[in-house]
Amino acid sequence: MRLADLPTPSLIVDSDAFVHNVATMGRAWPGRSLRPHVKAFKSTALAKELAAAGHPSFCAATPREVLGLAGAGLGEDLLLANEVLDQVKLGAMAKCGARVTIAVDSMATVAAAAASGIREVLIDVDVGCLRCGCPPDQAGRVADRARAAGLGVRGVMGYEGHLMMEPDTTKSERVEAAMASLAQAHEAVGGEVVSGGGTGTYAVNRWVTEMQAGSYTLMDTDYGRLGLPFRQAVFLWCTVISVHRGSRGWAVTDGGLKALGMDHGNPTVLGGVVLYCSDEHTTFIAPPDGLLPRVGDRVRLVPAHLDPTVAYHERLYVVDGKDVVDTWDVDLRNW
Amino acid sequence: MRLADLPTPSLIVDSDAFVHNVATMGRAWPGRSLRPHVKAFKSTALAKELAAAGHPSFCAATPREVLGLAGAGLGEDLLLANEVLDQVKLGAMAKCGARVTIAVDSMATVAAAAASGIREVLIDVDVGCLRCGCPPDQAGRVADRARAAGLGVRGVMGYEGHLMMEPDTTKSERVEAAMASLAQAHEAVGGEVVSGGGTGTYAVNRWVTEMQAGSYTLMDTDYGRLGLPFRQAVFLWCTVISVHRGSRGWAVTDGGLKALGMDHGNPTVLGGVVLYCSDEHTTFIAPPDGLLPRVGDRVRLVPAHLDPTVAYHERLYVVDGKDVVDTWDVDLRNW
Repeated sequence: MRLADLPTPSLIVDSDAFVHNVATMGRAWPGRSLRPHVKAFKSTALAKELAAAGHPSFCAATPREVLGLAGAGLGEDLLLANEVLDQVKLGAMAKCGARVTIAVDSMATVAAAAASGIREVLIDVDVGCLRCGCPPDQAGRVADRARAAGLGVRGVMGYEGHLMMEPDTTKSERVEAAMASLAQAHEAVGGEVVSGGGTGTYAVNRWVTEMQAGSYTLMDTDYGRLGLPFRQAVFLWCTVISVHRGSRGWAVTDGGLKALGMDHGNPTVLGGVVLYCSDEHTTFIAPPDGLLPRVGDRVRLVPAHLDPTVAYHERLYVVDGKDVVDTWDVDLRNW
Repeated sequence: MRLADLPTPSLIVDSDAFVHNVATMGRAWPGRSLRPHVKAFKSTALAKELAAAGHPSFCAATPREVLGLAGAGLGEDLLLANEVLDQVKLGAMAKCGARVTIAVDSMATVAAAAASGIREVLIDVDVGCLRCGCPPDQAGRVADRARAAGLGVRGVMGYEGHLMMEPDTTKSERVEAAMASLAQAHEAVGGEVVSGGGTGTYAVNRWVTEMQAGSYTLMDTDYGRLGLPFRQAVFLWCTVISVHRGSRGWAVTDGGLKALGMDHGNPTVLGGVVLYCSDEHTTFIAPPDGLLPRVGDRVRLVPAHLDPTVAYHERLYVVDGKDVVDTWDVDLRNW
């Protein structure tokens, strides 16, 4: 199929940019030192590309992601980097045939994991993100409880999510401080694994044993402004369905906020300036030195936040120039 | 099933509030004078409740919504209130067995509709929303072209979306001005139908022959602050998975921004104050006079924007008190 024949709105992946991104991250974190986070792209087809590039361990945020990876034959070493209490979901993961490790941060989450038949855990430690994770000085106690309940404790995890967008001048120092508290917890917990990091800190976090990045694969405008060596690889491919000429003219695409994660703001339109998004439309004006497109033209929007954008779509179309060369189902949606 | 046994995160619908909302809007816009907009809830099961309440005509924003309604036996009179150029999608709608009317606003969209076998159109008029719709003074020319191409022209539509949140003091006056330009277009176009309006203007728009509201069925915090007589009927049902005690404590739910439309900002949490949302978590603190919940407790989040929230979910669970009394599939997602 040709790019021009794709239905719109659709998410398209620039094959060259994706290959570049995978290779670039693979040089910094080769093999199993990278545990790609599937929450960013929610596709077992994309995950298989990463496994083929030497990264067979995966990180997930939901039980559905874990079960989908296991079902696709990608269950060598799956980490659910999130707390779960639901016995049905925990039980399904325990029985899915994959090696599944779950994050725990409290006596309640330890008890839930043990009751379900889950065999291995990481102790999740709060390193300043104001989210899940026990205080570093309680990690040893949670680990003791986990071992007493018969769980294997593989080590610790701590996500410095609050530092992904930290300015370069202070990022190294603040990541080091966050990882020092994770190291303190690791000393009390034991085990081989120290898991953490993300696309925004992959270059400065030298303390984890495995890097949990995912957004680097496809990128978005939020990570794009950090000046990382990754290229924008995903775009919302839209048709211009209405154009208003005149001195204050505008154009409207058939892709809007139901095709885009909006928590980081509006998308960028290549060849225009976005005025606003509504459910199924993006309204934009011409750039200062440019012209409005015509009805029927195609335009590319660049998402501001990758993860919630992909979660709206059924598939990713992989594009090489003007040809669609592959289709990756977004098969890890929902919970 | 009991509410307490539902998997989380899930969207739940308060049955009493939904029934109240349907009855309240039905008194203002009875029978076919209301054309409920399915984009707000994307469910044929919910649409069937509205048809049973006397509203068998529907409004849609995507071809998928039209085809899904037709397939569910709800095709008596479907309006796609949006422009479409894609011949595959137009052709599918032309052949779906339903009465399908499509919005057109240009010679290109007229030509596309006529080529596909679509039989009826409305002329879409820009009434100030900065989106689709031709200028009012060109509506007659678009209608002439449509009739020349063999299309039946049923009338006009014009969505005053920019006035939904207009303050009460100026809303009537500004809606009247917008509808005056629609009436001017209608005079040039002819036909029986003047379609427009929404939940934010349903009480003041006296000029349309059919009201396109949809959000009133389930509501959100954005419409909630308008003081309309509709009750909040949809909630994101979440489990508290992590709690941090202490003077600056916080709690974390398993529902985050991938389960919520975020373009209108953060959700509200009943019994807490939201600090922030991330992909699969919402972090909140206790209210000034309240306590944090315990790990395993359930909480309700109120979405800030209904439409993109529902679009993330596979189903709506209808709840009466502590019982789940029905399940409505969200079967009109994607495009």
